[in-house]
Amino acid sequence: MVKRVYNFSPGPAMLPLPALEEAQRDLLALPGVGMSILEISHRSATFKGIIEAAEENLRRLLNIPDDFEVLFMQGGARLQFGMIPMNFLRGKDRPASYVVTGSWSKLACQEAQLVGQVHVAWDGKATNYDRVPSDDQLDIKPQSAYVYICSNETIGGVRFPREPETGGIPLVCDASSELLSRPVDMSRYGILYACAQKNLGPAGVTVVIIRKDFVEACPDDLPSMLSYKKFAAEKSLLNTPPVFAVYMVKLVTDWLIREFGDLKRVADYNEEKANLIYDVIDRCGGFYQVHAAPGSRSTMNIAFRLPTQELEKEFLKQAEARNLYNLQGHRSVGGCRASIYNAMPREGVVALRDFMLEFFEENRHRLA
Amino acid sequence: MVKRVYNFSPGPAMLPLPALEEAQRDLLALPGVGMSILEISHRSATFKGIIEAAEENLRRLLNIPDDFEVLFMQGGARLQFGMIPMNFLRGKDRPASYVVTGSWSKLACQEAQLVGQVHVAWDGKATNYDRVPSDDQLDIKPQSAYVYICSNETIGGVRFPREPETGGIPLVCDASSELLSRPVDMSRYGILYACAQKNLGPAGVTVVIIRKDFVEACPDDLPSMLSYKKFAAEKSLLNTPPVFAVYMVKLVTDWLIREFGDLKRVADYNEEKANLIYDVIDRCGGFYQVHAAPGSRSTMNIAFRLPTQELEKEFLKQAEARNLYNLQGHRSVGGCRASIYNAMPREGVVALRDFMLEFFEENRHRLA
Repeated sequence: MVKRVYNFSPGPAMLPLPALEEAQRDLLALPGVGMSILEISHRSATFKGIIEAAEENLRRLLNIPDDFEVLFMQGGARLQFGMIPMNFLRGKDRPASYVVTGSWSKLACQEAQLVGQVHVAWDGKATNYDRVPSDDQLDIKPQSAYVYICSNETIGGVRFPREPETGGIPLVCDASSELLSRPVDMSRYGILYACAQKNLGPAGVTVVIIRKDFVEACPDDLPSMLSYKKFAAEKSLLNTPPVFAVYMVKLVTDWLIREFGDLKRVADYNEEKANLIYDVIDRCGGFYQVHAAPGSRSTMNIAFRLPTQELEKEFLKQAEARNLYNLQGHRSVGGCRASIYNAMPREGVVALRDFMLEFFEENRHRLA
Repeated sequence: MVKRVYNFSPGPAMLPLPALEEAQRDLLALPGVGMSILEISHRSATFKGIIEAAEENLRRLLNIPDDFEVLFMQGGARLQFGMIPMNFLRGKDRPASYVVTGSWSKLACQEAQLVGQVHVAWDGKATNYDRVPSDDQLDIKPQSAYVYICSNETIGGVRFPREPETGGIPLVCDASSELLSRPVDMSRYGILYACAQKNLGPAGVTVVIIRKDFVEACPDDLPSMLSYKKFAAEKSLLNTPPVFAVYMVKLVTDWLIREFGDLKRVADYNEEKANLIYDVIDRCGGFYQVHAAPGSRSTMNIAFRLPTQELEKEFLKQAEARNLYNLQGHRSVGGCRASIYNAMPREGVVALRDFMLEFFEENRHRLA
């Protein structure tokens, strides 16, 4: 029996064990194929079946209508930060409106500013990015090509409880740390994208769900890998895709469908897991301080602080002794963070909850 | 015992069995880590050790001097087609000289033409891309930022026997289908790059070896994932790299060093394997027709035709019955092709050679 720990990393993150086991079983040769998934041609019937099944799973789970393409790209969310403005803002006399709710939307905004006109519709700096804006706080330019959001900020653990109102302008959304964790209303999006290494699979593939009128609006003078139009025309096979990562997306979404059926159930499961932690935090009278304001709390990433850095250090050390790993906050902000994606089992969250309670009891006297 | 076939695919291609076995053994949890390679943080000490070892292996095998960066990027060779001119030609009053020896250098040339000034230094169209130019056939513009070549054209099976003379102008080279198959003279290159899925590992990572003065010459106004400068500044960890693919590059290069020691030995092994096939072809009096002209023959990809398409179909079918797979030519040219990268064992090549001889004996009467 292989020893595995509870891994609270923000990503790459835990994957469902059945998906890992299937990948391991077949790693030398896919059944009936005689070649490893790491060796098969991306033009083979076998891989065609895999990538189509991965797309079909995503369409089913997210209720993706036919007027959207589902693309498997490379380069992570970060390449999208550049590609989106290159395709929809460069050389155009209209801006996009960016909503800045934390590190990732800020970076996306900065990269877009290199390429085209950017209007900041809201910036959460005043309260240290602890919340998302209400609809009436948004200053959206009516002629915007799109309204950009990061639906769940991984570092701050801040998320939009639902899609913001944009006056009919399509959302372009980085959902890297929460895609597949709850239902979405696809009719609100021009582009909805996520890198895989949180809820979808291993690092190395980015799922980009893009409305066909966005695809058609792309210019013709971009290099092919940077053009949604040229990429979509080849159904993600413009060049060799990251075959193994796509295969893992298939296995992970297979598991999700088998285990939960639909995203409503996944969301309920995630709410319940997250509330185990938020409840403890709220019950410990300020010993643990959540970064996110009520109403903006993420179910995927819970960023919190302890009374002192010394206690935080001790907390992380003792956690590892309990098999609870990677609870440190992002290097840019410090503190602690528990990332509890779909594949983090409830037992892992319960173990963390119990540890947090005990650690509080043992150290509450140091709060004063 | 898992049944595995001889896979002559041009890429993704066969990987060394010991590398696959190690990846399989540890797929649920890396030894002493308790997490899968698919789940570990790219900022962890474990992964830092892996990516540094992969780089160290590449530096050792290719004799890469200190004035080069070794980058692990995404997007395949195709993203490089666009990135190279975006970084070194866009908005500049000087061209690059492109040598067109087949499909891949032609595509790179076309993508560069979207971005900046391109001069075609040679084009092999007149003889259907069956050879590389001699040095005196090259028409290189003296002020060129670089001279672009594809050192081994995977589709035609045509390669440069050595680096062409460029009058001191640095080469930018797509070595996707031959990197690590023979020694190179790094002093000739500004950039030497290869996607992994032939000799380096699985699809999903691109190794870019780039001279530091090229890195420094990059403009500041490109989105970060498209800037060699911004990417190199973060040592390939600007964002989450394709962790598993980098890990496989480490395992594959570990194997190469263990098994061969250096690239001179690898090259000897590959020459010998390729000659097993070329010799049969030459002995069969025109029954098999090699696409590549003498002097330009690849040791990695052998593209050939049979007297009729009907015979080719039969050849491919009978080959599979012998466990010899993926011998069809590229969909753009048809015919047959045997890709015999480092990880194709000599026994696989011998099996193909024997089959080719038998097929010739049985069907030679149909040659007339």
